[in-house]
Amino acid sequence: MSARQHSEPNDFAAGNGIVSRRAFLEGAVAVGALATSATEARTEPLIVQPWMKVPGAGFTGYGQPSRFEDKVVRVSPPPANPATQGVGAARTPLHLLDGIITPSGLHFERSHSGIPAIDPEQHRLLIHGLVRQPLLFTLEALHRYPMQSRIAFIECAGNGQLLNAPQPQQVGIAPLHGMIGCSEWTGVKLSTLLDEAGIDPSARWVIAEGADAASMSRSIPLAKAMDDTLVCLYQNGERVRPSNGYPVRLLVPGFEGNMNVKWLRRLKLAADPVMSKDETSKYTVLLKDEKAWQFVFPMEVKSVITRPAPTITLRQPGFYEISGLAWSGNGSIRQVDVSADGGQSWAAAALQAPILAKAPVRFRAAWQWNGGPAVLQSRATDDTGMVQPTRAQFAAERGLRGVYHYNAIASWRVDEKGELSNVYA
Amino acid sequence: MSARQHSEPNDFAAGNGIVSRRAFLEGAVAVGALATSATEARTEPLIVQPWMKVPGAGFTGYGQPSRFEDKVVRVSPPPANPATQGVGAARTPLHLLDGIITPSGLHFERSHSGIPAIDPEQHRLLIHGLVRQPLLFTLEALHRYPMQSRIAFIECAGNGQLLNAPQPQQVGIAPLHGMIGCSEWTGVKLSTLLDEAGIDPSARWVIAEGADAASMSRSIPLAKAMDDTLVCLYQNGERVRPSNGYPVRLLVPGFEGNMNVKWLRRLKLAADPVMSKDETSKYTVLLKDEKAWQFVFPMEVKSVITRPAPTITLRQPGFYEISGLAWSGNGSIRQVDVSADGGQSWAAAALQAPILAKAPVRFRAAWQWNGGPAVLQSRATDDTGMVQPTRAQFAAERGLRGVYHYNAIASWRVDEKGELSNVYA
Repeated sequence: MSARQHSEPNDFAAGNGIVSRRAFLEGAVAVGALATSATEARTEPLIVQPWMKVPGAGFTGYGQPSRFEDKVVRVSPPPANPATQGVGAARTPLHLLDGIITPSGLHFERSHSGIPAIDPEQHRLLIHGLVRQPLLFTLEALHRYPMQSRIAFIECAGNGQLLNAPQPQQVGIAPLHGMIGCSEWTGVKLSTLLDEAGIDPSARWVIAEGADAASMSRSIPLAKAMDDTLVCLYQNGERVRPSNGYPVRLLVPGFEGNMNVKWLRRLKLAADPVMSKDETSKYTVLLKDEKAWQFVFPMEVKSVITRPAPTITLRQPGFYEISGLAWSGNGSIRQVDVSADGGQSWAAAALQAPILAKAPVRFRAAWQWNGGPAVLQSRATDDTGMVQPTRAQFAAERGLRGVYHYNAIASWRVDEKGELSNVYA
Repeated sequence: MSARQHSEPNDFAAGNGIVSRRAFLEGAVAVGALATSATEARTEPLIVQPWMKVPGAGFTGYGQPSRFEDKVVRVSPPPANPATQGVGAARTPLHLLDGIITPSGLHFERSHSGIPAIDPEQHRLLIHGLVRQPLLFTLEALHRYPMQSRIAFIECAGNGQLLNAPQPQQVGIAPLHGMIGCSEWTGVKLSTLLDEAGIDPSARWVIAEGADAASMSRSIPLAKAMDDTLVCLYQNGERVRPSNGYPVRLLVPGFEGNMNVKWLRRLKLAADPVMSKDETSKYTVLLKDEKAWQFVFPMEVKSVITRPAPTITLRQPGFYEISGLAWSGNGSIRQVDVSADGGQSWAAAALQAPILAKAPVRFRAAWQWNGGPAVLQSRATDDTGMVQPTRAQFAAERGLRGVYHYNAIASWRVDEKGELSNVYA
């Protein structure tokens, strides 16, 4: 018999059924309610299914998900204008995923004029401006430089903007939170290339421009470009996907998504930012006093519970794992607390190793749902000490007129039927 | 001007052009030869390409690689028998990848009777045998248990078996080394499920069986099953791919590939191993004295240089990054040394963080190719102190008649034309 017994009462650490992290990590949680499905074993034989009676399918060069998973897709609204179908975003169905890596086929995409059909043989990257010697790189030349790999998130600055609405929108987790993705990115350190070009002492900014029809452009502080910025050729092991910048994109770790310029064609060193439309009319943070913050680069500490989440129904009371993602553009995640009573009481969740700077952390907590109403929340703290604000705190500081950098605590209400909805709590 | 100068001579740490790790990490390597392609900037303007003049493509639910990457595919020989096209393996093109994550579409697959077309609604997992209470799980029930995520490699025990041939085979890196893959796997700890079933004190083994037509079966020591074995539902964030065991597979970290049973349908606790064909006629290590080792579980310390590698041609002398993967089923990688002179001299490579137990590490070293002949090698050491043997050492200990657990140092010869080939050195 097992040394661990599952009949003891759970060791609760917060109200409305949140089990202590200690009990969760030691496995001493009463998961017994799940055995209702398992005790079928006594009466239901294990069937030899039809697929065991015939040889299976042969090998393929490039594999795909099961056809039974064909509803696990990115979510994008129909285009407002049929002529500009690539303007907008497709968002990740976070509630159907687990771990921290986003499968490349489901990584969110935000495009300002669609995905350009770039021929890598013809593509060039130019480094010019305040440099000793302008440089023009083919993909083959870029491939000869020393590379680095890094697991990092990219989050669109506009992720979560629907949570600014006066009434909670019932649109699912992808439209609400799905512009965050994480890949293992591999590329050449931008500092290596800038060193080779020779940086003029008057240079303070790097203007990065994409090869899409929008020429999406952002100004990046030279200090960041020389620190940890990568010119990426690979995403999750293979070449960067078209929707994420094929054949070459920037990774500007922790900084708002569109600074990680896709389809990178040009880097111009300059004394001042370029004031492109993508950093003036867009991607500035409108405040409640009608001022705006420009050049707010790092995405602030944030988290979201991805399971359970709206469209997932809890069919019966009992044990559930509360799981989600937490991240900070300022560093690594130090702690995530979870609540089942709308923030009246909190308990620390378990953080899944490895905990990496500027990468999401998967957090997990055990919850004993008693069948009554609950409001599930998560609250992340990063290693700079920044704590994710409540929606009220966020509104008091910045107001709710802006559409960028929303990072307040999100809330899922669970009703007596086990159905989840987006609420402001 | 940049503080770093690239005109100084390289700081060599081993013969035939291996640059010191210190110089490599500090960026003080003479990469100047690459500027030959970059100085085109003076004469070649940056062209506004056709794809910048039209709106790009719209959004897709599930993204795919660029059509320009359609040769980046798994390699599988034509089936020996058209009726059994799913018997064999498809191997990963390691030379076209970077980082440690293997894209799920390119993760190697080894199947004994093809990929079964499993309907997840109908699939069940049975735990029975020496247990207090047999349990039968639906996928939905499994989803309610606490999960864990882990980045881990899976390597087929037969990976590298062509290197036993008397003459070096010129078949490329995928057939030689391509049965190693790495994913972020997420699932339920097997110990959680076994605890719930209640383990009889006489149980010592867990017999795992797949739902393929071959009923691929392996015996796993109970201690390993209770340690770090996972019942996986997710691979790289999304549900496990069909070729890797959809809808549920085992991860037995570090143990030979086929113990990580795909399409998992049954776990039977027993006092003795089942002696299935998959652990008797296959997957035993034939030695030179005509004896064989059975139940050799961990994949031993190993490494391979993935770039440059055969089919990649070095077009001119100068700087190249030597990059590859190192891994050990017994723990984590402590050190990787590289050589450009066939093992006469060695220098430590840089290891890319994070360095995780039973996960591959990406190693990188700088190499100044002088245009002459070279033999590139890598040699991994794990944190148990095990060092990858030379081919001669491996042959002296085990002989070369076996087809499993080959982990000797591999060698790429570079000729004066910059072409690479597989050699025994």
